Amino acid sequence: MTHDHSAPDIAAERARREQDLLERVLRSFDDCADPRLKELMRALVRHLHAFLREVRLSEEEWRKGVEFLTRVGHITDDVRQEFILLSDVLGASMQMITMNNPAHGDATEATVLGPFFVDGAPRIELGGDVSGGAPGEPCWVEGTVRDTAGAAVPGARVEVWEADADGFYDVQYDDDRTMGRAHLFTGPDGEYRFWANTPTPYPIPHDGPVGALLAAVGRSPMRASHLHFLVKVDGYRTLVTHIFVRGDDLLESDTVFGVRDSLVKDFESRPADTPTPDGRAINGLWSKARFEIVLAPV
Amino acid sequence: MTHDHSAPDIAAERARREQDLLERVLRSFDDCADPRLKELMRALVRHLHAFLREVRLSEEEWRKGVEFLTRVGHITDDVRQEFILLSDVLGASMQMITMNNPAHGDATEATVLGPFFVDGAPRIELGGDVSGGAPGEPCWVEGTVRDTAGAAVPGARVEVWEADADGFYDVQYDDDRTMGRAHLFTGPDGEYRFWANTPTPYPIPHDGPVGALLAAVGRSPMRASHLHFLVKVDGYRTLVTHIFVRGDDLLESDTVFGVRDSLVKDFESRPADTPTPDGRAINGLWSKARFEIVLAPV
Ligand SMILES: [Fe+2]
Ligand SMILES: [Fe+2]
Repeated sequence: MTHDHSAPDIAAERARREQDLLERVLRSFDDCADPRLKELMRALVRHLHAFLREVRLSEEEWRKGVEFLTRVGHITDDVRQEFILLSDVLGASMQMITMNNPAHGDATEATVLGPFFVDGAPRIELGGDVSGGAPGEPCWVEGTVRDTAGAAVPGARVEVWEADADGFYDVQYDDDRTMGRAHLFTGPDGEYRFWANTPTPYPIPHDGPVGALLAAVGRSPMRASHLHFLVKVDGYRTLVTHIFVRGDDLLESDTVFGVRDSLVKDFESRPADTPTPDGRAINGLWSKARFEIVLAPV
Repeated sequence: MTHDHSAPDIAAERARREQDLLERVLRSFDDCADPRLKELMRALVRHLHAFLREVRLSEEEWRKGVEFLTRVGHITDDVRQEFILLSDVLGASMQMITMNNPAHGDATEATVLGPFFVDGAPRIELGGDVSGGAPGEPCWVEGTVRDTAGAAVPGARVEVWEADADGFYDVQYDDDRTMGRAHLFTGPDGEYRFWANTPTPYPIPHDGPVGALLAAVGRSPMRASHLHFLVKVDGYRTLVTHIFVRGDDLLESDTVFGVRDSLVKDFESRPADTPTPDGRAINGLWSKARFEIVLAPV
């Protein structure tokens, strides 16, 4: 005995089977004792299956996906975290930052921490030098840390770090250099100031599967030029952010989506013979930037 | 100067920032030259961000997710594919099968291939023994391969494989045994028949991160008892499927969601002294199952 099944019958039957399967998978978490884990797993399954069904993923594409994740896993070790890099280039890391650092009045916006923060960077005084001798064009950075009511925040710890003129952080070199990173504390009126290097662009590590993915989709591995800040003081939400350089060609294509309009600052270029704010003699061009920081309440 | 921002303002501003970010990530694929890859990446990003935003994933949860994927990557090697196992327990593998093997009239339903198929299993004649000496209760399996119009399909290659009574496939042992797997060809009337062992349940490999996940969500790693089939012949869609044992307690909780109602068969138990279909003398219980196979057109 045979039946004649028309195409709409087949499509409806297929949709029913797909939905039945999804519901069976969702029910498999019914006995999960941790309500948050249950919520996460059920949501993950719903969105994963919605993706598979929307794109009608082929078995060959699924195999390629498994192979890609395997390569990501195999290149990951104690000093390289390719899964975080993957999260970064898919905008997932930045979405986490956006969700978990809610807009709060005028508070300064957060952006990604990145992989190059190091605990225990040297302390410098107000007006000291962050570069530690790293090659680059000198840059004077100054500003004030305030709260959302406009009151100065003295004694706030301001951590700063950046790549050198070759696009590398100190920790990317094989020697044990400490350069391009330091911390200082704001003065009585919330003020801070330091010398650093004018930020320059650099690529994320792109010799692995994530770099191959970027190449395949026609994306650059470059990050827009930036200077990292981490500002921490009791009574306020810790701020992890960057400042970016107005006019940088990469602002629109930062490969980890870290740029926010409010974080793009003027880095004013100064000729070699211009007097510096602190009288330091500089043999060449230098630049100057202001960054007013507003901390959200905890 | 300060502004007074009420809570609804903050929620709206946060939603706007999240949406802006998502759209920026989607636009980053604008220059992808491969239209299918572009479609896949954009859909992946949409569903990934929808997941993150729906569950409001915390940075701590994100870190745990990264650590989990890292463990999955590190346990994966040439003989163990933990990403496939992960895909299996999330129902993604079975959803792939469901999507890519559309319902077609009365055609036999497909299910997962599983990790234990091996090319080049020995050939047996009609009525031969698949078990190859593997321990277990003998089981006579017979049926006919037909097309969706009811016509017999002679000369179809029928591959069969199964775990032994201890729940292991031959390839899971350190010796080079070949047991519990064979292939045969259907006869002139599409008929096939063989001896195998009555299927018994077994756990998927659960000593790794996927096993830990199953334990955390209160799920068993057990698969329902089954016998694997792969039926291949020119002119028809290759069928990868199982048959399951009616009455098995695990039918409702198969950990990879492979069970389909239409694949659950009666395995009729026979006392030791019952004559066997081919006159073989059996010293104990044996069982008997029928599996009518219908192949879809290519
Ligand atoms: Fe950086
Ligand atoms: Fe199996």
